[in-house]
Amino acid sequence: MAFSYLQSCSSSNLVVYQQDHDHDKDQLNLPTGYRFSPRNHELVLNYLVNKILGQKLPANIITTIDLYQYDPPQLPISEFKYGKLNEAYFFNEREYIPSKGLAKRRTKSGYWKATGRDTQIFYGKTVVGFKKILIFYWGRAPDGKRSPWIMHEFRVNPSLIPPNSLDNNTITTKVGKHVVCKIHYKESKEDNKPSKPKRSKKIPQIPEETKN
Amino acid sequence: MAFSYLQSCSSSNLVVYQQDHDHDKDQLNLPTGYRFSPRNHELVLNYLVNKILGQKLPANIITTIDLYQYDPPQLPISEFKYGKLNEAYFFNEREYIPSKGLAKRRTKSGYWKATGRDTQIFYGKTVVGFKKILIFYWGRAPDGKRSPWIMHEFRVNPSLIPPNSLDNNTITTKVGKHVVCKIHYKESKEDNKPSKPKRSKKIPQIPEETKN
Repeated sequence: MAFSYLQSCSSSNLVVYQQDHDHDKDQLNLPTGYRFSPRNHELVLNYLVNKILGQKLPANIITTIDLYQYDPPQLPISEFKYGKLNEAYFFNEREYIPSKGLAKRRTKSGYWKATGRDTQIFYGKTVVGFKKILIFYWGRAPDGKRSPWIMHEFRVNPSLIPPNSLDNNTITTKVGKHVVCKIHYKESKEDNKPSKPKRSKKIPQIPEETKN
Repeated sequence: MAFSYLQSCSSSNLVVYQQDHDHDKDQLNLPTGYRFSPRNHELVLNYLVNKILGQKLPANIITTIDLYQYDPPQLPISEFKYGKLNEAYFFNEREYIPSKGLAKRRTKSGYWKATGRDTQIFYGKTVVGFKKILIFYWGRAPDGKRSPWIMHEFRVNPSLIPPNSLDNNTITTKVGKHVVCKIHYKESKEDNKPSKPKRSKKIPQIPEETKN
Protein backbone atom coordinates (compact mmCIF):
# COMPACT_ATOMS: atom_id res chain seq x y z
CA MET A 1 0.00 0.00 0.00
CA ALA A 2 1.24 3.46 -0.82
CA PHE A 3 1.04 4.72 2.75
CA SER A 4 3.36 2.11 4.19
CA TYR A 5 5.58 2.44 1.14
CA LEU A 6 6.05 6.09 1.94
CA GLN A 7 6.74 5.40 5.58
CA SER A 8 9.42 2.96 4.57
CA CYS A 9 11.09 5.74 2.60
CA SER A 10 12.03 7.64 5.75
CA SER A 11 15.71 7.02 5.08
CA SER A 12 15.39 9.44 2.18
CA ASN A 13 16.47 13.05 2.43
CA LEU A 14 12.86 14.13 2.27
CA VAL A 15 10.77 13.66 5.36
CA VAL A 16 7.13 12.79 5.02
CA TYR A 17 4.11 13.11 7.27
CA GLN A 18 4.83 14.18 10.85
CA GLN A 19 8.56 13.63 10.84
CA ASP A 20 9.07 17.31 10.38
CA HIS A 21 10.40 20.30 12.24
CA ASP A 22 8.09 22.15 14.54
CA HIS A 23 7.99 25.78 13.54
CA ASP A 24 5.69 28.60 14.37
CA LYS A 25 4.88 31.17 11.72
CA ASP A 26 5.75 34.10 13.92
CA GLN A 27 9.05 32.60 15.03
CA LEU A 28 10.22 32.01 11.50
CA ASN A 29 12.80 34.65 10.65
CA LEU A 30 14.45 33.80 7.39
CA PRO A 31 17.60 35.38 5.97
CA THR A 32 17.15 37.41 2.81
CA GLY A 33 16.68 35.22 -0.24
CA TYR A 34 14.87 32.32 1.42
CA ARG A 35 11.20 31.77 0.64
CA PHE A 36 8.42 29.22 0.52
CA SER A 37 9.06 27.27 -2.65
CA PRO A 38 7.87 23.70 -2.03
CA ARG A 39 8.27 20.87 -4.47
CA ASN A 40 4.98 19.39 -5.59
CA HIS A 41 5.32 16.23 -3.53
CA GLU A 42 6.26 18.22 -0.41
CA LEU A 43 3.14 20.32 -0.81
CA VAL A 44 0.99 17.20 -1.08
CA LEU A 45 2.69 14.94 1.48
CA ASN A 46 3.83 17.41 4.12
CA TYR A 47 1.06 19.97 3.91
CA LEU A 48 -2.14 18.71 2.29
CA VAL A 49 -2.12 15.18 3.76
CA ASN A 50 -1.46 16.54 7.26
CA LYS A 51 -4.20 19.12 6.80
CA ILE A 52 -6.72 16.45 5.80
CA LEU A 53 -5.70 14.24 8.72
CA GLY A 54 -5.84 17.17 11.14
CA GLN A 55 -2.18 16.83 12.03
CA LYS A 56 0.45 19.48 12.67
CA LEU A 57 1.95 21.11 9.57
CA PRO A 58 5.66 21.84 9.05
CA ALA A 59 4.87 25.58 9.11
CA ASN A 60 1.72 27.64 9.56
CA ILE A 61 2.13 29.43 6.27
CA ILE A 62 -0.90 28.23 4.30
CA THR A 63 -4.24 29.60 5.43
CA THR A 64 -7.61 28.07 4.63
CA ILE A 65 -9.97 30.26 2.64
CA ASP A 66 -13.20 29.91 0.73
CA LEU A 67 -11.40 30.48 -2.53
CA TYR A 68 -14.38 31.06 -4.81
CA GLN A 69 -15.71 33.86 -2.64
CA TYR A 70 -12.89 35.98 -4.04
CA ASP A 71 -12.09 37.39 -7.43
CA PRO A 72 -8.31 36.94 -7.73
CA PRO A 73 -7.35 40.62 -7.15
CA GLN A 74 -9.18 40.42 -3.81
CA LEU A 75 -7.20 37.42 -2.60
CA PRO A 76 -4.81 38.18 0.31
CA ILE A 77 -1.74 37.47 -1.82
CA SER A 78 0.38 40.19 -0.22
CA GLU A 79 -0.25 38.76 3.27
CA PHE A 80 1.48 35.54 2.30
CA LYS A 81 4.77 35.75 4.20
CA TYR A 82 7.99 34.57 2.55
CA GLY A 83 6.30 33.83 -0.74
CA LYS A 84 7.56 34.55 -4.21
CA LEU A 85 6.47 37.72 -5.96
CA ASN A 86 2.73 37.73 -6.74
CA GLU A 87 2.29 34.21 -5.45
CA ALA A 88 0.44 32.64 -2.52
CA TYR A 89 -0.77 29.24 -1.34
CA PHE A 90 -4.19 28.52 0.14
CA PHE A 91 -6.03 25.50 1.41
CA ASN A 92 -9.51 25.27 -0.02
CA GLU A 93 -12.42 22.93 0.60
CA ARG A 94 -14.58 22.74 -2.50
CA GLU A 95 -18.31 22.62 -2.01
CA TYR A 96 -19.76 19.18 -2.69
CA ILE A 97 -23.27 19.07 -4.15
CA PRO A 98 -24.60 15.49 -3.77
CA SER A 99 -26.46 15.36 -7.06
CA LYS A 100 -23.88 17.24 -9.10
CA GLY A 101 -20.50 16.53 -7.57
CA LEU A 102 -18.06 19.29 -6.75
CA ALA A 103 -19.29 22.83 -7.29
CA LYS A 104 -18.06 24.84 -10.26
CA ARG A 105 -15.10 27.11 -9.79
CA ARG A 106 -17.06 30.34 -10.18
CA THR A 107 -16.37 33.62 -8.46
CA LYS A 108 -18.48 36.76 -8.30
CA SER A 109 -17.06 38.22 -11.51
CA GLY A 110 -15.54 35.29 -13.36
CA TYR A 111 -14.46 31.67 -13.32
CA TRP A 112 -11.41 29.45 -13.19
CA LYS A 113 -11.02 27.23 -16.25
CA ALA A 114 -8.85 24.13 -16.35
CA THR A 115 -6.18 24.00 -19.01
CA GLY A 116 -4.55 20.84 -20.30
CA ARG A 117 -4.61 17.48 -18.59
CA ASP A 118 -3.95 16.81 -14.92
CA THR A 119 -0.37 16.00 -14.04
CA GLN A 120 0.57 13.14 -11.78
CA ILE A 121 2.80 14.05 -8.83
CA PHE A 122 5.37 11.44 -8.01
CA TYR A 123 7.35 10.68 -4.89
CA GLY A 124 9.79 8.11 -6.09
CA LYS A 125 7.66 5.87 -8.25
CA THR A 126 4.44 6.43 -6.30
CA VAL A 127 1.74 8.78 -7.53
CA VAL A 128 1.05 10.85 -4.42
CA GLY A 129 -1.25 13.41 -5.98
CA PHE A 130 -2.45 15.28 -9.01
CA LYS A 131 -1.99 18.83 -10.26
CA LYS A 132 -4.49 20.77 -12.31
CA ILE A 133 -3.62 24.10 -13.91
CA LEU A 134 -6.37 26.68 -14.24
CA ILE A 135 -6.62 30.18 -15.67
CA PHE A 136 -8.99 32.85 -14.43
CA TYR A 137 -11.43 34.36 -16.91
CA TRP A 138 -13.51 37.47 -16.28
CA GLY A 139 -17.19 37.11 -17.16
CA ARG A 140 -19.12 33.91 -17.79
CA ALA A 141 -18.13 30.87 -19.88
CA PRO A 142 -17.69 30.53 -22.78
CA ASP A 143 -17.37 34.27 -23.36
CA GLY A 144 -14.97 35.06 -20.53
CA LYS A 145 -11.91 37.24 -20.98
CA ARG A 146 -8.61 35.62 -20.05
CA SER A 147 -6.70 37.16 -17.14
CA PRO A 148 -3.05 36.86 -16.00
CA TRP A 149 -4.12 34.89 -12.89
CA ILE A 150 -3.04 31.24 -12.80
CA MET A 151 -3.87 28.52 -10.29
CA HIS A 152 -2.10 25.23 -9.63
CA GLU A 153 -4.59 23.08 -7.75
CA PHE A 154 -3.14 20.06 -5.94
CA ARG A 155 -5.13 17.15 -4.63
CA VAL A 156 -3.90 14.05 -2.89
CA ASN A 157 -4.10 10.53 -4.25
CA PRO A 158 -6.88 9.06 -2.02
CA SER A 159 -5.01 5.78 -1.63
CA LEU A 160 -2.41 7.65 0.45
CA ILE A 161 -4.88 8.36 3.24
CA PRO A 162 -4.84 5.52 5.80
CA PRO A 163 -8.26 3.78 5.75
CA ASN A 164 -8.72 4.03 9.52
CA SER A 165 -7.89 7.74 9.67
CA LEU A 166 -11.24 8.98 8.41
CA ASP A 167 -14.82 7.80 8.18
CA ASN A 168 -14.75 5.27 5.35
CA ASN A 169 -17.96 6.56 3.83
CA THR A 170 -16.67 10.08 3.46
CA ILE A 171 -13.01 9.47 2.69
CA THR A 172 -13.31 9.73 -1.08
CA THR A 173 -15.38 12.89 -1.11
CA LYS A 174 -13.37 14.46 1.68
CA VAL A 175 -10.09 13.83 -0.07
CA GLY A 176 -11.50 15.02 -3.38
CA LYS A 177 -12.81 18.22 -1.79
CA HIS A 178 -9.64 19.21 0.03
CA VAL A 179 -7.08 20.88 -2.19
CA VAL A 180 -4.14 23.20 -1.84
CA CYS A 181 -3.83 25.93 -4.44
CA LYS A 182 -0.94 28.02 -5.62
CA ILE A 183 -2.25 31.28 -7.02
CA HIS A 184 0.06 33.29 -9.20
CA TYR A 185 -0.23 36.55 -11.08
CA LYS A 186 1.80 36.32 -14.25
CA GLU A 187 3.28 39.71 -14.94
CA SER A 188 3.65 40.82 -18.51
CA LYS A 189 7.10 41.99 -19.62
CA GLU A 190 5.84 45.56 -19.38
CA ASP A 191 4.89 45.01 -15.72
CA ASN A 192 8.41 43.87 -14.90
CA LYS A 193 10.16 46.94 -16.13
CA PRO A 194 10.06 50.42 -14.68
CA SER A 195 9.13 53.17 -17.11
CA LYS A 196 11.52 53.38 -20.07
CA PRO A 197 14.25 51.05 -18.80
CA LYS A 198 16.99 52.45 -21.02
CA ARG A 199 20.55 52.08 -19.82
CA SER A 200 21.52 55.30 -18.10
CA LYS A 201 24.48 57.14 -19.59
CA LYS A 202 25.68 57.89 -16.08
CA ILE A 203 26.38 54.26 -15.30
CA PRO A 204 30.05 53.32 -15.74
CA GLN A 205 30.55 50.57 -18.26
CA ILE A 206 31.89 47.20 -17.22
CA PRO A 207 35.37 46.55 -18.68
CA GLU A 208 35.40 44.95 -22.09
CA GLU A 209 35.56 41.22 -21.98
CA THR A 210 36.63 38.71 -24.54
CA LYS A 211 33.81 36.91 -26.28
CA ASN A 212 32.99 33.28 -25.71
CA MET B 1 24.21 58.74 -6.16
CA ALA B 2 22.85 55.26 -6.28
CA PHE B 3 24.39 54.16 -2.99
CA SER B 4 22.77 56.87 -0.92
CA TYR B 5 19.56 56.42 -2.87
CA LEU B 6 19.46 52.80 -1.82
CA GLN B 7 20.18 53.65 1.79
CA SER B 8 17.28 56.08 1.76
CA CYS B 9 15.02 53.21 0.66
CA SER B 10 15.31 51.47 4.00
CA SER B 11 11.63 52.08 4.71
CA SER B 12 10.90 49.53 1.99
CA ASN B 13 10.04 45.94 2.83
CA LEU B 14 13.36 44.81 1.44
CA VAL B 15 16.44 45.47 3.49
CA VAL B 16 19.70 46.24 1.75
CA TYR B 17 23.34 45.99 2.70
CA GLN B 18 24.04 45.04 6.31
CA GLN B 19 20.58 45.63 7.70
CA ASP B 20 19.99 41.93 7.63
CA HIS B 21 19.53 39.03 9.98
CA ASP B 22 22.58 37.30 11.30
CA HIS B 23 22.35 33.63 10.49
CA ASP B 24 24.83 30.84 10.52
CA LYS B 25 24.61 28.17 7.86
CA ASP B 26 24.66 25.34 10.36
CA GLN B 27 22.01 26.90 12.57
CA LEU B 28 19.58 27.34 9.72
CA ASN B 29 16.90 24.70 10.07
CA LEU B 30 14.11 25.41 7.66
CA PRO B 31 10.67 23.81 7.63
CA THR B 32 9.88 21.63 4.63
CA GLY B 33 9.13 23.69 1.54
CA TYR B 34 11.43 26.63 2.25
CA ARG B 35 14.50 27.10 0.09
CA PHE B 36 16.99 29.64 -1.21
CA SER B 37 15.18 31.44 -3.98
CA PRO B 38 16.46 35.02 -4.03
CA ARG B 39 15.12 37.74 -6.25
CA ASN B 40 17.72 39.16 -8.61
CA HIS B 41 18.16 42.41 -6.72
CA GLU B 42 18.51 40.56 -3.41
CA LEU B 43 21.27 38.44 -4.87
CA VAL B 44 23.11 41.52 -6.09
CA LEU B 45 22.50 43.91 -3.18
CA ASN B 46 22.49 41.56 -0.18
CA TYR B 47 25.00 38.98 -1.33
CA LEU B 48 27.31 40.17 -4.13
CA VAL B 49 27.81 43.73 -2.91
CA ASN B 50 28.56 42.55 0.63
CA LYS B 51 30.94 39.94 -0.73
CA ILE B 52 32.86 42.54 -2.74
CA LEU B 53 33.01 44.90 0.24
CA GLY B 54 34.11 42.08 2.56
CA GLN B 55 31.05 42.47 4.76
CA LYS B 56 28.89 39.87 6.47
CA LEU B 57 26.35 38.10 4.28
CA PRO B 58 22.73 37.34 5.25
CA ALA B 59 23.54 33.62 5.17
CA ASN B 60 26.65 31.57 4.46
CA ILE B 61 25.03 29.64 1.67
CA ILE B 62 27.05 30.73 -1.37
CA THR B 63 30.58 29.40 -1.55
CA THR B 64 33.36 30.86 -3.64
CA ILE B 65 34.80 28.58 -6.28
CA ASP B 66 37.06 28.81 -9.31
CA LEU B 67 34.15 28.12 -11.60
CA TYR B 68 36.03 27.41 -14.81
CA GLN B 69 38.13 24.70 -13.21
CA TYR B 70 35.00 22.54 -13.31
CA ASP B 71 32.99 20.99 -16.09
CA PRO B 72 29.36 21.45 -14.92
CA PRO B 73 28.75 17.81 -13.87
CA GLN B 74 31.73 18.13 -11.49
CA LEU B 75 30.31 21.21 -9.74
CA PRO B 76 29.24 20.59 -6.12
CA ILE B 77 25.58 21.23 -6.92
CA SER B 78 24.26 18.59 -4.52
CA GLU B 79 26.16 20.16 -1.61
CA PHE B 80 24.16 23.34 -1.97
CA LYS B 81 21.85 23.24 1.04
CA TYR B 82 18.24 24.37 0.71
CA GLY B 83 18.53 24.97 -3.01
CA LYS B 84 16.04 24.10 -5.68
CA LEU B 85 16.41 20.85 -7.58
CA ASN B 86 19.56 20.77 -9.74
CA GLU B 87 20.42 24.34 -8.87
CA ALA B 88 23.23 26.03 -6.95
CA TYR B 89 24.77 29.47 -6.49
CA PHE B 90 28.48 30.25 -6.47
CA PHE B 91 30.64 33.30 -6.14
CA ASN B 92 33.31 33.45 -8.80
CA GLU B 93 36.18 35.79 -9.45
CA ARG B 94 37.00 35.82 -13.14
CA GLU B 95 40.64 35.95 -14.12
CA TYR B 96 41.69 39.35 -15.47
CA ILE B 97 44.36 39.38 -18.16
CA PRO B 98 45.69 42.95 -18.48
CA SER B 99 46.18 42.93 -22.24
CA LYS B 100 43.02 40.97 -23.04
CA GLY B 101 40.48 41.78 -20.37
CA LEU B 102 38.56 39.07 -18.56
CA ALA B 103 39.53 35.49 -19.36
CA LYS B 104 37.29 33.35 -21.54
CA ARG B 105 34.73 31.13 -19.87
CA ARG B 106 36.44 27.88 -20.84
CA THR B 107 36.52 24.68 -18.84
CA LYS B 108 38.54 21.53 -19.36
CA SER B 109 36.02 19.96 -21.73
CA GLY B 110 33.86 22.79 -22.98
CA TYR B 111 32.85 26.44 -22.70
CA TRP B 112 30.05 28.68 -21.49
CA LYS B 113 28.49 30.74 -24.26
CA ALA B 114 26.42 33.86 -23.65
CA THR B 115 22.92 33.87 -25.08
CA GLY B 116 20.90 36.97 -25.78
CA ARG B 117 21.56 40.42 -24.37
CA ASP B 118 22.36 41.25 -20.77
CA THR B 119 19.37 42.11 -18.62
CA GLN B 120 19.34 45.09 -16.28
CA ILE B 121 18.43 44.33 -12.68
CA PHE B 122 16.34 46.98 -11.04
CA TYR B 123 15.70 47.89 -7.44
CA GLY B 124 12.92 50.42 -7.73
CA LYS B 125 14.05 52.55 -10.64
CA THR B 126 17.79 52.07 -10.06
CA VAL B 127 19.83 49.66 -12.12
CA VAL B 128 21.69 47.72 -9.43
CA GLY B 129 23.24 45.07 -11.64
CA PHE B 130 23.21 43.05 -14.80
CA LYS B 131 22.36 39.46 -15.62
CA LYS B 132 23.91 37.43 -18.40
CA ILE B 133 22.51 34.02 -19.39
CA LEU B 134 24.97 31.41 -20.63
CA ILE B 135 24.69 27.85 -21.90
CA PHE B 136 27.39 25.23 -21.55
CA TYR B 137 28.70 23.59 -24.72
CA TRP B 138 30.90 20.51 -24.80
CA GLY B 139 33.97 20.81 -27.03
CA ARG B 140 35.47 23.95 -28.50
CA ALA B 141 33.73 26.92 -30.16
CA PRO B 142 32.21 27.14 -32.69
CA ASP B 143 31.73 23.37 -32.93
CA GLY B 144 30.58 22.71 -29.37
CA LYS B 145 27.62 20.54 -28.52
CA ARG B 146 24.91 22.21 -26.48
CA SER B 147 24.29 20.82 -22.98
CA PRO B 148 21.35 21.20 -20.54
CA TRP B 149 23.50 23.30 -18.16
CA ILE B 150 22.51 26.94 -17.82
CA MET B 151 24.19 29.77 -15.94
CA HIS B 152 22.78 33.09 -14.83
CA GLU B 153 25.77 35.31 -14.14
CA PHE B 154 25.08 38.41 -12.04
CA ARG B 155 27.39 41.38 -11.71
CA VAL B 156 26.88 44.56 -9.78
CA ASN B 157 26.51 48.02 -11.27
CA PRO B 158 29.91 49.55 -10.35
CA SER B 159 28.29 52.87 -9.44
CA LEU B 160 26.72 51.14 -6.43
CA ILE B 161 30.07 50.54 -4.77
CA PRO B 162 30.97 53.48 -2.52
CA PRO B 163 34.08 55.21 -3.95
CA ASN B 164 35.95 55.13 -0.67
CA SER B 165 35.33 51.46 -0.03
CA LEU B 166 37.93 50.15 -2.44
CA ASP B 167 41.10 51.32 -4.10
CA ASN B 168 39.90 53.69 -6.83
CA ASN B 169 42.33 52.32 -9.39
CA THR B 170 41.04 48.80 -9.06
CA ILE B 171 37.36 49.35 -8.37
CA THR B 172 36.19 48.91 -11.95
CA THR B 173 38.15 45.75 -12.63
CA LYS B 174 37.39 44.32 -9.20
CA VAL B 175 33.68 44.88 -9.58
CA GLY B 176 33.72 43.52 -13.11
CA LYS B 177 35.59 40.40 -12.00
CA HIS B 178 33.36 39.49 -9.06
CA VAL B 179 30.18 37.76 -10.04
CA VAL B 180 27.62 35.47 -8.49
CA CYS B 181 26.38 32.62 -10.65
CA LYS B 182 23.27 30.51 -10.54
CA ILE B 183 23.99 27.16 -12.19
CA HIS B 184 21.04 25.07 -13.23
CA TYR B 185 20.63 21.73 -14.94
CA LYS B 186 17.53 21.84 -17.09
CA GLU B 187 15.93 18.42 -17.00
CA SER B 188 14.25 17.14 -20.10
CA LYS B 189 10.66 15.94 -19.79
CA GLU B 190 11.96 12.38 -19.87
CA ASP B 191 14.22 13.10 -16.86
CA ASN B 192 11.24 14.31 -14.83
CA LYS B 193 9.18 11.19 -15.17
CA PRO B 194 9.84 7.80 -13.67
CA SER B 195 9.80 4.92 -16.10
CA LYS B 196 6.45 4.51 -17.86
CA PRO B 197 4.41 6.91 -15.74
CA LYS B 198 1.06 5.42 -16.62
CA ARG B 199 -1.76 5.84 -14.12
CA SER B 200 -1.90 2.72 -12.00
CA LYS B 201 -5.16 0.81 -12.13
CA LYS B 202 -4.93 0.28 -8.38
CA ILE B 203 -5.33 3.96 -7.64
CA PRO B 204 -8.90 4.93 -6.75
CA GLN B 205 -10.36 7.55 -9.05
CA ILE B 206 -11.21 10.98 -7.77
CA PRO B 207 -14.98 11.65 -7.80
CA GLU B 208 -16.33 13.12 -11.01
CA GLU B 209 -16.50 16.84 -10.94
CA THR B 210 -18.46 19.26 -13.01
CA LYS B 211 -16.47 21.02 -15.67
CA ASN B 212 -15.41 24.64 -15.38
